[in-house]
Amino acid sequence: MINMAKKVVIIGGGDAGTYTLEAIFKKGAEVLKQFDITLVKKEKGGSASICAVPLALQGFFRMKDVTEVDPPETFIGHGIDYRTETEATGINLETSTVSLDTGDELKYDSLVIATGRKPRIPDVEGATVKGVYTMSTMEDGEKIEAAMNSPEAKNAVVIGGGTIGIQVAVAFSKKGLKTTVVIGHQKPLSSILDSDMGSLVHEKLAKEGLEFVLGQNVESILGDGAEVKAVVVGGKEIPADIVVISSGMLPNSDLAEKAGLDIGETGGIVTDQFLHVKKDGKYLSQVYALGDCVEVLDAITLSPRLSQLASTVLVQAKVVVNDLLGGSYPLEPALSPSVATISDFQVGVVGITSATAERYGITVISGKKEKPTKARFYAGRKSMAVKLLFDAYSERLIGAQLISEEMVADRIDGLYNAIRNGMTAKELSRMEKSFDPCISLHRDVMVDAMDNAVVQFKA
Amino acid sequence: MINMAKKVVIIGGGDAGTYTLEAIFKKGAEVLKQFDITLVKKEKGGSASICAVPLALQGFFRMKDVTEVDPPETFIGHGIDYRTETEATGINLETSTVSLDTGDELKYDSLVIATGRKPRIPDVEGATVKGVYTMSTMEDGEKIEAAMNSPEAKNAVVIGGGTIGIQVAVAFSKKGLKTTVVIGHQKPLSSILDSDMGSLVHEKLAKEGLEFVLGQNVESILGDGAEVKAVVVGGKEIPADIVVISSGMLPNSDLAEKAGLDIGETGGIVTDQFLHVKKDGKYLSQVYALGDCVEVLDAITLSPRLSQLASTVLVQAKVVVNDLLGGSYPLEPALSPSVATISDFQVGVVGITSATAERYGITVISGKKEKPTKARFYAGRKSMAVKLLFDAYSERLIGAQLISEEMVADRIDGLYNAIRNGMTAKELSRMEKSFDPCISLHRDVMVDAMDNAVVQFKA
Repeated sequence: MINMAKKVVIIGGGDAGTYTLEAIFKKGAEVLKQFDITLVKKEKGGSASICAVPLALQGFFRMKDVTEVDPPETFIGHGIDYRTETEATGINLETSTVSLDTGDELKYDSLVIATGRKPRIPDVEGATVKGVYTMSTMEDGEKIEAAMNSPEAKNAVVIGGGTIGIQVAVAFSKKGLKTTVVIGHQKPLSSILDSDMGSLVHEKLAKEGLEFVLGQNVESILGDGAEVKAVVVGGKEIPADIVVISSGMLPNSDLAEKAGLDIGETGGIVTDQFLHVKKDGKYLSQVYALGDCVEVLDAITLSPRLSQLASTVLVQAKVVVNDLLGGSYPLEPALSPSVATISDFQVGVVGITSATAERYGITVISGKKEKPTKARFYAGRKSMAVKLLFDAYSERLIGAQLISEEMVADRIDGLYNAIRNGMTAKELSRMEKSFDPCISLHRDVMVDAMDNAVVQFKA
Repeated sequence: MINMAKKVVIIGGGDAGTYTLEAIFKKGAEVLKQFDITLVKKEKGGSASICAVPLALQGFFRMKDVTEVDPPETFIGHGIDYRTETEATGINLETSTVSLDTGDELKYDSLVIATGRKPRIPDVEGATVKGVYTMSTMEDGEKIEAAMNSPEAKNAVVIGGGTIGIQVAVAFSKKGLKTTVVIGHQKPLSSILDSDMGSLVHEKLAKEGLEFVLGQNVESILGDGAEVKAVVVGGKEIPADIVVISSGMLPNSDLAEKAGLDIGETGGIVTDQFLHVKKDGKYLSQVYALGDCVEVLDAITLSPRLSQLASTVLVQAKVVVNDLLGGSYPLEPALSPSVATISDFQVGVVGITSATAERYGITVISGKKEKPTKARFYAGRKSMAVKLLFDAYSERLIGAQLISEEMVADRIDGLYNAIRNGMTAKELSRMEKSFDPCISLHRDVMVDAMDNAVVQFKA
């Protein structure tokens, strides 16, 4: 009997590759039998939780618990040809084969490109001095943990004010290192927060002892012999025993580009709504790309952008597997709801910021409010800051930013739902809301923020 | 100069009356000046948080902090003629006047009926014996607190398995009283939970030492001279020093009925979507009713029912005040999202149960899942049980039941949003979701429950 199983090759064993496998496993053993799956990955080990690494540095959990969530045996046990420390060096679309650094050629019926991302390194002298790290892989996490625990570590500089950079800086500060964050923008988290909301994060972290250098770029990194010694900003030297460069992540689309696939202006691989890649103006039905290496369509601006989130790829993996099985299940344009633990804060966002709205010519009406999340007679209540952005013309919600010590994630997911369904400020302010004095507040901060927006629209 | 202010009379100072005042205050001083407002209420004191009383009995907060959230002076300070210990004895629709027990007659341009609810007392011998309480007013809460703190209190019986009854029973049990709950249905919380979800509550509370008598009704309450002694169920005597009857709440619509207004089968006052009351087949544009005394239209079954929640009246108050000001702002049919603290559990629901679906001939496909809310390497994670109900024909979400020690309220509000927008299981299972390892899980329990429903629908 001839083996009629469909040969699937997956390049990459990060979240994108792993979730693709899991989405197939979820379909059951009968479906899994229809496939002959090979996954190749450069790294050692099985699946890992890379977004947990900066939080492991802060001591929320042990590094070794996040570096291997599922060992290779988990996947091998499902019958996957799971090849670690193996690099794909080329894709031949004519012959439907993938070349490996081992010299092997893998034939595929369907190919899944899940090559992830790589850190953007600013063009700065000294960026390769010893003691200068990036935070993108498990190995990076382990190296940074060793460096921050060294008795010589006294001064740390983080270059970049995104989520990962700030989380690593908080880890250094918690560990007792004098920590400076150098940010090119005026506020931390400027890609996801308006500056008034970014100020809340800035003030909180400054109060906790982090130093900030805002609106300036690093000029050079100085080494003292073999080791990093200082970072130069605005002509001044900031002493540094550890430097982490966290200046954003670029799609790792080199292999796709080499194979002649379309790469967008964002640097991400271009796909259709079934995650098929594009070549010479046509989408290829047997080749998929997903995860941090692709660009997505923004649901508000309808323009391409990056959405390098585990939650983005989780949905993409379902779409890829559904298409592999012959179903029709298109990917929706992305709203990228996200939440991040920043010190005691949970910072949650969905949709676009005011800066993005301005770039695309969208006039915004915003509703803001900061107040406690629970009844005044409840001792354990926290404060929550809410900023909601509405399109001035349609009155629809197009973005939301929440900061609090609690309740942020699920509220962001609820607001995602409201944006997805085109809900307006008036509709939202009329929503029923669950209430229990131990859990929530009936005159809720989000409803107040909505009401504050409503009065700015004409009746 | 003639005073052209519009005379508004509000009957009732519970949540419905209070929220109506607050919705007017929120419009600003200029709007407030257009009205000459009198509020009459039977009770002493200002606004209170009645739903916090059973939780105050459990020690979450002090009784005196919830019994007067805002004193009368708060409202008097806004220029309201706020009359406590004053009962409205009649409404004359011909003359647009309200008669008071003081002998006064109040003339109105607009009338707001906010007469609230009253406890349903089962027709049982002994229901008026000393030591038998209901839990509906602040005074009830104070009396029950005094009784449970008495050194003679050893045995307690709660009659009724709704939220309030269970919360009072938990308070007794926490206080060390041997506590028995007698429920006519097979499971606690049967009006909001399917029996499989109700079992989780039952098992949890039984483990904590509460006794349950299920599927049986109380036959009589026995007094020993002046004081309650026992409750008789199934021919057996359950010793009792305190008995609380919590057999549901009825709309307090007597005054409206006496005035000839339409009362629905539920016992609630009939209104249109602007909360105008109905008389002789016509809605009266100058007379409103809202809160626990009215019936609402259910958003799934499109049939009248009661929705005696603070969150329901909060939305209704906005609609009433908007209509008073000449705006057009209809009330949506109700989905009644709610959450309740039951011991360590948060029990949250929205939409209809399987029993209600069956009563209305709706075929249900349900998706269920119970699993932790956070990553496996996170020490503080809790379990969450989810049951989602979908209409088999349209595949739309029509109900949700969540039980966990955390995260329930905001998820219920998000699911409310999904039901309101007619989202299907397939659409929901493709939603992006925020993720942070300290806060949430990317393979989330709700998404699993949705996926479990999706596979039951035809592709």
